[in-house]
Amino acid sequence: MTAGAAPRPSRTRSWWGWGWADAHPDDAECTAMGALVPGTLARPLPQPEVADLRIGRPAVEPPGSLAPLVTADPGPRAAHAMGKAYRDVVRALRGRPGRIPDLVAFPRRDRDVAELLEWAGEQRVAVVPYGGGSSVVGGVEYRGDEHRAALSLDLTAMDRVLEVDADGRAALVQAGILGPDLEDRLRPHGLTLRHFPQSFEFSTLGGWLATRAGGHYATGRTRIDEFTQALRVVTPAGTDESWRLPSSGAGPSPDRLFLGSEGALGVITRAWIRLQERPRHKASASVAFTGLDAALRAVRDIAQSDLLPANCRLLDAGEAALAGASADGSAVLVLGFESATAPVGDRLALAVDLARAHGGRPGPEAASGTADDGAVRAWRSAFLRMPYLRDGLARMGAVVETFETAATWDRIPALIADVRSELGAAASRATGHPALINCRLTHVYPDGAAPYFTVIAGGRPGDELAVWDELKAVAADVLHRHRATITHHHAVGRDHRPAYDRQRPQHFALALGAAKRALDPHGILNPGVLVDG
Amino acid sequence: MTAGAAPRPSRTRSWWGWGWADAHPDDAECTAMGALVPGTLARPLPQPEVADLRIGRPAVEPPGSLAPLVTADPGPRAAHAMGKAYRDVVRALRGRPGRIPDLVAFPRRDRDVAELLEWAGEQRVAVVPYGGGSSVVGGVEYRGDEHRAALSLDLTAMDRVLEVDADGRAALVQAGILGPDLEDRLRPHGLTLRHFPQSFEFSTLGGWLATRAGGHYATGRTRIDEFTQALRVVTPAGTDESWRLPSSGAGPSPDRLFLGSEGALGVITRAWIRLQERPRHKASASVAFTGLDAALRAVRDIAQSDLLPANCRLLDAGEAALAGASADGSAVLVLGFESATAPVGDRLALAVDLARAHGGRPGPEAASGTADDGAVRAWRSAFLRMPYLRDGLARMGAVVETFETAATWDRIPALIADVRSELGAAASRATGHPALINCRLTHVYPDGAAPYFTVIAGGRPGDELAVWDELKAVAADVLHRHRATITHHHAVGRDHRPAYDRQRPQHFALALGAAKRALDPHGILNPGVLVDG
Repeated sequence: MTAGAAPRPSRTRSWWGWGWADAHPDDAECTAMGALVPGTLARPLPQPEVADLRIGRPAVEPPGSLAPLVTADPGPRAAHAMGKAYRDVVRALRGRPGRIPDLVAFPRRDRDVAELLEWAGEQRVAVVPYGGGSSVVGGVEYRGDEHRAALSLDLTAMDRVLEVDADGRAALVQAGILGPDLEDRLRPHGLTLRHFPQSFEFSTLGGWLATRAGGHYATGRTRIDEFTQALRVVTPAGTDESWRLPSSGAGPSPDRLFLGSEGALGVITRAWIRLQERPRHKASASVAFTGLDAALRAVRDIAQSDLLPANCRLLDAGEAALAGASADGSAVLVLGFESATAPVGDRLALAVDLARAHGGRPGPEAASGTADDGAVRAWRSAFLRMPYLRDGLARMGAVVETFETAATWDRIPALIADVRSELGAAASRATGHPALINCRLTHVYPDGAAPYFTVIAGGRPGDELAVWDELKAVAADVLHRHRATITHHHAVGRDHRPAYDRQRPQHFALALGAAKRALDPHGILNPGVLVDG
Repeated sequence: MTAGAAPRPSRTRSWWGWGWADAHPDDAECTAMGALVPGTLARPLPQPEVADLRIGRPAVEPPGSLAPLVTADPGPRAAHAMGKAYRDVVRALRGRPGRIPDLVAFPRRDRDVAELLEWAGEQRVAVVPYGGGSSVVGGVEYRGDEHRAALSLDLTAMDRVLEVDADGRAALVQAGILGPDLEDRLRPHGLTLRHFPQSFEFSTLGGWLATRAGGHYATGRTRIDEFTQALRVVTPAGTDESWRLPSSGAGPSPDRLFLGSEGALGVITRAWIRLQERPRHKASASVAFTGLDAALRAVRDIAQSDLLPANCRLLDAGEAALAGASADGSAVLVLGFESATAPVGDRLALAVDLARAHGGRPGPEAASGTADDGAVRAWRSAFLRMPYLRDGLARMGAVVETFETAATWDRIPALIADVRSELGAAASRATGHPALINCRLTHVYPDGAAPYFTVIAGGRPGDELAVWDELKAVAADVLHRHRATITHHHAVGRDHRPAYDRQRPQHFALALGAAKRALDPHGILNPGVLVDG
């Protein structure tokens, strides 16, 4: 068998950590960060090497017709062994990556995918669809033992923009395209998908669709669902696609069953996506609040208005301090407006007025309403660097992870308070040190919001995963008690499966299980995520 | 068994036609309308009487425990025999209403529904969920012969608003509530669902949810899907509900599988719905266009802006003339803006500018931008009276019906032209007279629009249904050829089933069929709609 490697950018992706290999913090930076977290190591763990892994021979071999699409080389297999959660990084650092896929396939067209699925069905090979590999919920690894082998199905060789309908603001795009490539190819048309998850550089359209990714923008159309006009899905039971429609009332939405299906029902190979004109008018401001509760009420008022800010991120005091957006213990609301149609200064001013009515203090540059102010800039640059810093801290033996949820407004204040107190107590118990627990709202809705938590704790290098699993279980219990979703935009994967099973209504569980058995009769598609066949 | 009649308003609903019995046009008005349509009757058909129907004894009798919820009286059975499509009205007028349900049940709580379903499963009784009965697609009647009997499950006794979360802009509401009652109970809280389908007075929340109803507003949040926060569903396999969440990425949306499920997967008995503040600022205007194509381009530009008009209805020349909105052969665009947050005059002015750039001529009152102009008022009053006039024309032996679709912008001009020419030719062939075929856009999207057609033809009184079925088949073929959905907001029911089966992707058909069998193992839920078990 020969390696049918996908086209790769010239920079090298890290096989074990976030993003580009050359962007990892160096040992000195790691050590400096570690010094800020009590109970961490004095020196960073070494960056792991693929050569140190024991990677056996694959348990199956593909037939000759498929061999050109498939590789059994250690490099791609190691890189496809898991996603990019904190626990994945630690597993790599500690030399315990778990089960490594027997094979990695790089299909080039739908027929390749269909043939791979057919062969996998016959051979009882688990097939794990893989886009950019940025899952943080155990979505791209095989953990079972009921299959003869595991194949990672890497879609990134299917990365073309096939058609652009500029008048109709839509494009037909293959699922394996990475975020920057997609935007590069839309730019000449003056159009953008305007969907920027934090993983944007390292995730694919297909991954966004399969996980119902949340975009960067705080209100209005931001989740990938809303940008989906039609989907083509390859399943073991056949390949078909939905019609391009702006809207339809003909039965339950066919696409909505596959959006968020995480590769368990089929492989999304292409989509018609809805595009937007690139914004020409922008304005942003920050508003500081002495107390979080007043800030929450201000954000609720703004979310319930029809002002539709592109950004409406509320950073609690800790988060604001970490991002350099405030140093006096204030919570900071970062507001941004964008439009391709008309200037947005009036909308910004109205939103700032709503914030002021709840005691908000606009930043010094807000009055102009035309350029990003200092707090906004500080927050943005911290945001993009965050996952790299997480990996640096992981090398110092720290526990450092995020999780996000969403709940209705009535539950938000107590939910945030309970996560903070119960997680704080659990961290102290587990590590003997206080943990840093920060919160921001990433998305706001008229009827609720999505809090996003960051946890940083030291204290038990070597046992980091046990500590994290303990903290995550506490967090999941708090979320469940408040009927807050186990994930707002990071999918279920394998890590959230127990919580998802408790959250999902039984009628839907029955329907989903039945759909799974109908579309995937051999139970080969991403076994372990979402639902059992 | 005793009649457990639901609470009724003091006015009487027509058992055979649209709306209130006392609002039907009288014989003189019918005759005057008929005179405008060549080839109709000289005198109206008489209004039909329940007493003239042959209504047999029911084939089954419910057990004593359920008897208080169920009636076998002819009146309710006749009124529940069908919906309110043109073809339903003609069937009643011609004394051929088809199969009349054996029983009508009025459950008062979820347990009643569950027990009725259990009994129906044991007895092989088809259960047809029924809200306001305003289906225009054969959604509320049993047409099969594989069941021992048919029961109409009328939800209107479950009509309470159970809880209002005013801060969180949401309410928990039973599914059987009619539109006006819901709004009456929300008004004291200063809130509104702001979902106004044309059937508003005569349809229920549960009906809107089960059919994915489209609201009155042209852009933004308008379909009931977007106002759905959580659903409780009673199925033969059990009862459960989704969590109240503003948004979630945990797997495919559970609610989206039941939105549009038309009673085939379960009975929606309550929902948490998202509410809005009542708008305080309004502005509207009309803009006339000499040609439809220029108007379509203007509407596309407005839909692709972020102005979000509440109304953006484009009436073609015929529709505008019929509504009294224009008399000179112009197409008319009716624009309206609403907000609870801020004045909307600026947004109206920007939209009018976009229309002007395509040759649009604003109406005389548009400049003020504060009150409804004449064309707007004329159109609104015609809109509300339309279904009554349809029934009056039906009594004159005319064919008079509407159908709607949606398609991407690239297909809209040819789609409208082809419907007009092919339907016109078919009508001439079938009746020997030219037909009136009008079109308006009811909803617009950045990537497409929803054209809504009205057909009025005379010529073969007595054979109206054969003529209409012929025309509808031609229309369905044109829609299919243009990949335009068989319904934008009137559901599939039994009338659209063949077209829906051609439109729906096979992978979804497999999933839906499997879900149906899992949730409804005895195949009793609304047999014939959407999918076979």
